[in-house]
Amino acid sequence: MSVPYASLTPQQVATEYAAVSAEFESLKEKHLKLDMSRGKPGKEQLDLVSDLLTTLQTPADCVVDGLDVRNYGEVGGIPAAKRLFAEILGCRSEECFIGGNASLTLMYDTIAKAYTNGLLHSPRPWGKEDVVKFLCPSPGYDRHFKVSQSFGMELITVPMTAAGPDMDLVEDLIRDPAVKGMWCVPKYSNPDGIVYSDETIRRIAGMKPAAPDFALMWDNAYCIHEFEGPFVPFDDILTLCREAGNPDMVYEYASTSKVTFPGAGVSVMATSEANLAYLLRLIGFQTISYDKVNQLRHVKYLKDKAHTLELMRKHAAILGPKFRCVLDTLEREIAPLGIAQWQKPKGGYFVSVNTAPGLAKRTLELCKEAGVVMTPAGATFPYGKDPRDSNIRIAPSLPPVEELKAAMDVFCTCLKLAALEQAAG
Amino acid sequence: MSVPYASLTPQQVATEYAAVSAEFESLKEKHLKLDMSRGKPGKEQLDLVSDLLTTLQTPADCVVDGLDVRNYGEVGGIPAAKRLFAEILGCRSEECFIGGNASLTLMYDTIAKAYTNGLLHSPRPWGKEDVVKFLCPSPGYDRHFKVSQSFGMELITVPMTAAGPDMDLVEDLIRDPAVKGMWCVPKYSNPDGIVYSDETIRRIAGMKPAAPDFALMWDNAYCIHEFEGPFVPFDDILTLCREAGNPDMVYEYASTSKVTFPGAGVSVMATSEANLAYLLRLIGFQTISYDKVNQLRHVKYLKDKAHTLELMRKHAAILGPKFRCVLDTLEREIAPLGIAQWQKPKGGYFVSVNTAPGLAKRTLELCKEAGVVMTPAGATFPYGKDPRDSNIRIAPSLPPVEELKAAMDVFCTCLKLAALEQAAG
Repeated sequence: MSVPYASLTPQQVATEYAAVSAEFESLKEKHLKLDMSRGKPGKEQLDLVSDLLTTLQTPADCVVDGLDVRNYGEVGGIPAAKRLFAEILGCRSEECFIGGNASLTLMYDTIAKAYTNGLLHSPRPWGKEDVVKFLCPSPGYDRHFKVSQSFGMELITVPMTAAGPDMDLVEDLIRDPAVKGMWCVPKYSNPDGIVYSDETIRRIAGMKPAAPDFALMWDNAYCIHEFEGPFVPFDDILTLCREAGNPDMVYEYASTSKVTFPGAGVSVMATSEANLAYLLRLIGFQTISYDKVNQLRHVKYLKDKAHTLELMRKHAAILGPKFRCVLDTLEREIAPLGIAQWQKPKGGYFVSVNTAPGLAKRTLELCKEAGVVMTPAGATFPYGKDPRDSNIRIAPSLPPVEELKAAMDVFCTCLKLAALEQAAG
Repeated sequence: MSVPYASLTPQQVATEYAAVSAEFESLKEKHLKLDMSRGKPGKEQLDLVSDLLTTLQTPADCVVDGLDVRNYGEVGGIPAAKRLFAEILGCRSEECFIGGNASLTLMYDTIAKAYTNGLLHSPRPWGKEDVVKFLCPSPGYDRHFKVSQSFGMELITVPMTAAGPDMDLVEDLIRDPAVKGMWCVPKYSNPDGIVYSDETIRRIAGMKPAAPDFALMWDNAYCIHEFEGPFVPFDDILTLCREAGNPDMVYEYASTSKVTFPGAGVSVMATSEANLAYLLRLIGFQTISYDKVNQLRHVKYLKDKAHTLELMRKHAAILGPKFRCVLDTLEREIAPLGIAQWQKPKGGYFVSVNTAPGLAKRTLELCKEAGVVMTPAGATFPYGKDPRDSNIRIAPSLPPVEELKAAMDVFCTCLKLAALEQAAG
């Protein structure tokens, strides 16, 4: 049936329920085992970048700007990598700190240092505060929220709009000096795939938080990750914050996890030179340097922004069909029924489905029964609790298209079944 | 003159002072620029392991035990790397956590988590304690002490003996529940090159600290790093602690920083499975995984303990002559004068000279004037303050032997000059 479920008579609900149940049972018999739980690139994407493995072959290859990257030193990263990331992010290379294989680690470490030592403008370490609150635009990235939670912060949910976080609410909340920061994924937000509007970004950069050490955690994870259409330029958040009189408010993060190898890429933190000078003193206790050989491998392989964007187009050629499969299936199977809504992102790694209230958990339970594992319901909200039990994050990057089709059939059937169960009361 | 300076008459001191001063002036005219400040391997050592760069070349090379190391996952490290390090350390692979390129980072992170979350048996996070004290056998490794210092700990100096830390004092100090741990480099200690005696290690493993979450920070940095003579086996500290009823007391660290590339090796933390289970939950907030591609690179390159020890013999062939140059020069130039003493290590990365009290700072000042940079005086003691102003750490690994000879001439001349200045009052 392809009419809104809300318009069905009880008799029609019963008929449809019987039909969808039968479909569900037949899907179960396929004994599928599909994983769409995380934004993992697929094997075809990993194979794209195999030349990275052999970019450095000899001792001479390991010298750049007169620096032998094999030995100790250069805690802030090699200048060549700073230049590459500065070009991609639109900031200055002096504002870049090059880390190891995970930007998540750089984010965690920034918060950890805020707790044990304080940030540049902290009156005291956050660990000495009675309470620390953090703004969590939701649905959002579970790992962000869990970093905050692991330090015992109080997480405050801020609803996402189609233009980014609800800024009226944000501007109200930051008048509380216990609110020490906010998590943001400004381009192709995780999971909605929303690009923050210029207006939203201008308001964020111009915030006047009561906390002098408010940390705008700007995770630009998908800054060059279009899977549909041309590269969408973005403004440099460091410049915007500086111009708005907030030079030390923002910490921007990115990585090559979804450019080269997810487990073996290079990460970057961009922040004001004053913040960097402060943090470098603390990072100097933690390490002598991150892996500079891998930094140089990436510089030689990616070369510059233009060359990196070429590579991203090859990723897009692999990812595009997968996302189109998800969006087309949703459009065909679910849109007419009026039981869910979703954005139609052009980049990032997720499609985020908002079901009618109360359907998310049940839908994913049914998916699991039929052999399809998705990100747990609620994961995209603070404390893993979605107040409307509505958001479901679909991660289509890992399975080949054929498997994805099968998984989406399961998903749509399960969502319908959950809606019909609810309608049947 | 080759007699003890203490036996010289004032007239003889004046004569010798004039002679050594003249020598110092002539050395200054050479305008040397030599760095012996850190335990950096030399270029010849780095070139030894160039094949590591091309160990993995194809997608198929990146799969081990059915695991594609290029993608996300396996936060504890790849099983093959756990097996390699377990064989080297003598522990079980289930007790190994494989990290990134720096064991220092694993140590720092362990302490950081103790502060923000507590360790397995902590009554509360260390950050909530009024005071945290840490035992620092000295002379010791400045970076250990600085980790402690960066968290605001109170550092307690424990004198080193030729058999390791003064255990009578240690056993007394750990009756204070505020004493939360101790830094140890058990084999070829930094800087003395002392190997802890079996008796010392037995007493350490059997300690009964008042703090239930006492952390024995066991930095086995030089566990396979002989530069003279055969490999010296060592007992597994995890087993010793377990047998002594302290299964969760010890955290052991090692890395390939001085086996392959100092800036791009692989690190390991070995600790009880109970500790690992606890820490993995916290590490899971910090990262999705460390660089598993580099872990596999190392596994394929190093193969096993026997093959790794073969490589270490090649390092020894390069390092041995450098250490012999240092020790022979000291023996010839300084020993007869009675103004300093030193161990004669057979492994590790340093020679540690203990001058007569009050000579270290002045000696290094003079070295600097003559173009030779050494580890700053005092660095090997808590807070960078050597109470006797006596300990000087010589790091002979980086310069080629010819440069080292020149640097040692400078060092001996400067030490003599400092002693004669003091004798002249």
